[in-house]
Amino acid sequence: MDKKILSSADIQQFEQRYRATFINSLGGFKSICLIGTKNKSNMSNLAIFSSIVHIGANPPLIGFVVRPDSAERHTLENILETGFYTLNHIDTEILEKAHQTSARYPREVSEFDAVGLTEYYQDFFAPFVKESHIQIGMEFRERVDFTINDTIFIIGEIKTVSFPSDILKEDGFLNLESAGTLTCSGLDSYHTTSNVSRLSYAKTESWPTRIK
Amino acid sequence: MDKKILSSADIQQFEQRYRATFINSLGGFKSICLIGTKNKSNMSNLAIFSSIVHIGANPPLIGFVVRPDSAERHTLENILETGFYTLNHIDTEILEKAHQTSARYPREVSEFDAVGLTEYYQDFFAPFVKESHIQIGMEFRERVDFTINDTIFIIGEIKTVSFPSDILKEDGFLNLESAGTLTCSGLDSYHTTSNVSRLSYAKTESWPTRIK
Repeated sequence: MDKKILSSADIQQFEQRYRATFINSLGGFKSICLIGTKNKSNMSNLAIFSSIVHIGANPPLIGFVVRPDSAERHTLENILETGFYTLNHIDTEILEKAHQTSARYPREVSEFDAVGLTEYYQDFFAPFVKESHIQIGMEFRERVDFTINDTIFIIGEIKTVSFPSDILKEDGFLNLESAGTLTCSGLDSYHTTSNVSRLSYAKTESWPTRIK
Repeated sequence: MDKKILSSADIQQFEQRYRATFINSLGGFKSICLIGTKNKSNMSNLAIFSSIVHIGANPPLIGFVVRPDSAERHTLENILETGFYTLNHIDTEILEKAHQTSARYPREVSEFDAVGLTEYYQDFFAPFVKESHIQIGMEFRERVDFTINDTIFIIGEIKTVSFPSDILKEDGFLNLESAGTLTCSGLDSYHTTSNVSRLSYAKTESWPTRIK
């Protein structure tokens, strides 16, 4: 296998867009969701995020990274103003619409309308994406500013979850693959998944086995 | 489609292990890597992490979450002691070995030896996994403590990268799928990917097109 080795000096010399594409690819496949919000005047917003991170199970917490100079800033403003937002999984049927939410629509345009996804409320302040198979209602909990590059990390608590009944397995595992949830690589590459296996809990005195 | 809706009260009542499995599944497919470290006495450590996050391209930054009460604590100690670590992608050939690093081996056992992966040095302080197709050398930059649940977020800067030459595309995109990089769902489910499409940069006045 022919290997390529790059130093930080090589990466530094990349053209800006090339470097963004390269570095965004490096870390592996990413969790993607549509984040739905509205402001206090009921103006809704929808944006795709690719840096969703599990933070903890008790309390149930999920975090994500926001770049405040981007199309993502309306999402951040609405979350800080109202305290609520939704995470909505993306499948191939809504992929182009989901991706299109990353265009820089002005404040007075709702991306729900602009891309043709349906704003949907169910006992929750923030809008869900009706077409999404897995929907999570979140309440804002903690904001952390990363001083190194002025990005912001938002942590929220899971308040409500909706998903197809048949993807919940007896041990609590959700089969996202059968629900059609996509993953993302780099800035713009979307992928379905194929299960290799689940592996048994690792113990020092035995070897992991494949479980179904 | 039969839908199941759960409230935070429902989630609260889950048995602990069931809840961990459920909440870990919810956020979508995750980036996974083996993190290689050693301490100042040259004792090496290797651990699998599933919360690798892109933080920025300039400077090139990647972050990850550490739970300090877990098998991950040796990784954290070594990074804080020495300032260096490696991220190594996981493919099906090394999957079981990679998963097995999550067993709670004692301090004096190197997971490289315990699971049968090869510790490898190339002009860098921290050990790479020789069998891994994509290897990234990282320097520690910022530590953030999330007060809400005592997890720790570690941000590092990319110092060196090694990958198969043929996965680098002309715009800087790395085709991780052709390199065999896996993604993870929940605590223990591993998946290959199948490319749906790359989509063109989103603009308000046009619709995204599929690009190759």
